[in-house]
Amino acid sequence: MDDLLRLGKQVLASQPFSTLVGAELTGFSPGSAELTIPVTPQLKQQHGFVHGGVISYAADNALTYAGGSVLGPAVVTSEYKINYLRPAKGTALIARAIVICKSRTQAVCRCDVFTIDEDKENLCAVSQGTIASIGKSSEE
Amino acid sequence: MDDLLRLGKQVLASQPFSTLVGAELTGFSPGSAELTIPVTPQLKQQHGFVHGGVISYAADNALTYAGGSVLGPAVVTSEYKINYLRPAKGTALIARAIVICKSRTQAVCRCDVFTIDEDKENLCAVSQGTIASIGKSSEE
Amino acid sequence: MDDLLRLGKQVLASQPFSTLVGAELTGFSPGSAELTIPVTPQLKQQHGFVHGGVISYAADNALTYAGGSVLGPAVVTSEYKINYLRPAKGTALIARAIVICKSRTQAVCRCDVFTIDEDKENLCAVSQGTIASIGKSSEE
Amino acid sequence: MDDLLRLGKQVLASQPFSTLVGAELTGFSPGSAELTIPVTPQLKQQHGFVHGGVISYAADNALTYAGGSVLGPAVVTSEYKINYLRPAKGTALIARAIVICKSRTQAVCRCDVFTIDEDKENLCAVSQGTIASIGKSSEE
Repeated sequence: MDDLLRLGKQVLASQPFSTLVGAELTGFSPGSAELTIPVTPQLKQQHGFVHGGVISYAADNALTYAGGSVLGPAVVTSEYKINYLRPAKGTALIARAIVICKSRTQAVCRCDVFTIDEDKENLCAVSQGTIASIGKSSEE
Repeated sequence: MDDLLRLGKQVLASQPFSTLVGAELTGFSPGSAELTIPVTPQLKQQHGFVHGGVISYAADNALTYAGGSVLGPAVVTSEYKINYLRPAKGTALIARAIVICKSRTQAVCRCDVFTIDEDKENLCAVSQGTIASIGKSSEE
Repeated sequence: MDDLLRLGKQVLASQPFSTLVGAELTGFSPGSAELTIPVTPQLKQQHGFVHGGVISYAADNALTYAGGSVLGPAVVTSEYKINYLRPAKGTALIARAIVICKSRTQAVCRCDVFTIDEDKENLCAVSQGTIASIGKSSEE
Repeated sequence: MDDLLRLGKQVLASQPFSTLVGAELTGFSPGSAELTIPVTPQLKQQHGFVHGGVISYAADNALTYAGGSVLGPAVVTSEYKINYLRPAKGTALIARAIVICKSRTQAVCRCDVFTIDEDKENLCAVSQGTIASIGKSSEE
């Protein structure tokens, strides 16, 4: 495992909410990040699908990681939007985010969220947002 | 407690992820909804603030409830965007959503998310999105 | 007319595209801005309604003005989202934007866009976005 | 020129605002659309860059066309968000939109907007939104 991924996993492990959700950082390189969340019963809504809040968490955090991969670890999500495409069912969620454009203090990123259902990936949400460095300005 | 709020609480209680997060429906009337989440250690990120994923969950679910208050219980969030305004710290999160415009099959809603810190409310995120009825079309 | 509104009108007059669209700055004070656009045939789409691009322009520019009212004239829109609520018809568009939260280098703002139809205001779009100062960072 | 592109050009020509802006439909096939706008002085803001409202128009309309390419001509943009990446300068804008996911009544699409500057394409904005069919529901 390379140093960046190892560092990223340490940061994720230090987030109690990410531990609660069961998220794992499964990819992390300059310009991209991948989070995987095994689907457990407690992550669902009343109809048996993965709760939208879990999908949003995955997109948000993957966007943050992607931004952090080029801006450094001191970053926050400033804003994002998400479109849910279909009910999420399966054994795991995978959120893959990439950096679209980077400046000194922020990165605009996109994220695709997939479910894994019987070894098939299904796109279930798409997201786009802004990650801001908090080390280089006083605003966040 | 009126019937709508009672029904809303039953739906929330049937969402395992909402139970995991500890969300409570504290207001629900035609055109508006309020969710309250007591802040516990497991809802935080590595710096001790409430994790953005919890704030997104609160906004998303409050938007869905607001939409559901005018469209009926069979609704989903189609999409939303959120701007985080400041780090969220305090003893509770409160997400208040209202319906801006309703058609037969969808509602556009806005949500403000506050933290409660020493009895003071601080706005920490604003959101806007679309809630769609799933009973009146085959698309969702 | 106060100095801020006069300054704002000068800036708007220096934007060739705003002149092309026929936009007027009808309100401008710390924390808010109002743009008015008389509806002319050339602003319409094929069904006789105001083109969505005009509504987006109005929301975007009103958001920028609102942000500029608290950040100073050197600002740009970083990002925004808009929900169209109903077809826009009438004699004028009015876009009203307010600042929700301001930091040193950016402002999160909301905007409501109305049509004026037989002296009645109808909300036709709602928007939310981020305005960034370009004088205080090198990124924009 | 194929029939779909010819039809698309006719629709664009019937939009007075698109004619005012000078937009041309330069690509249109099932699942994608491309709009090109030659940059003229009247499309600029006060610093000589293309006005954000033009970029928004391009993104919005390209999204609508992409959605229309799979849903049919009776469509509207329900909502979208846009992130501006850098000041837009050059001789033309090109907005390229694709369909990410289509249901019976709506399509979620993404759009990238480029400037052409000395024969080089520069990404200047990214967008994501929902296009709704108006022929299959009464809501729009």
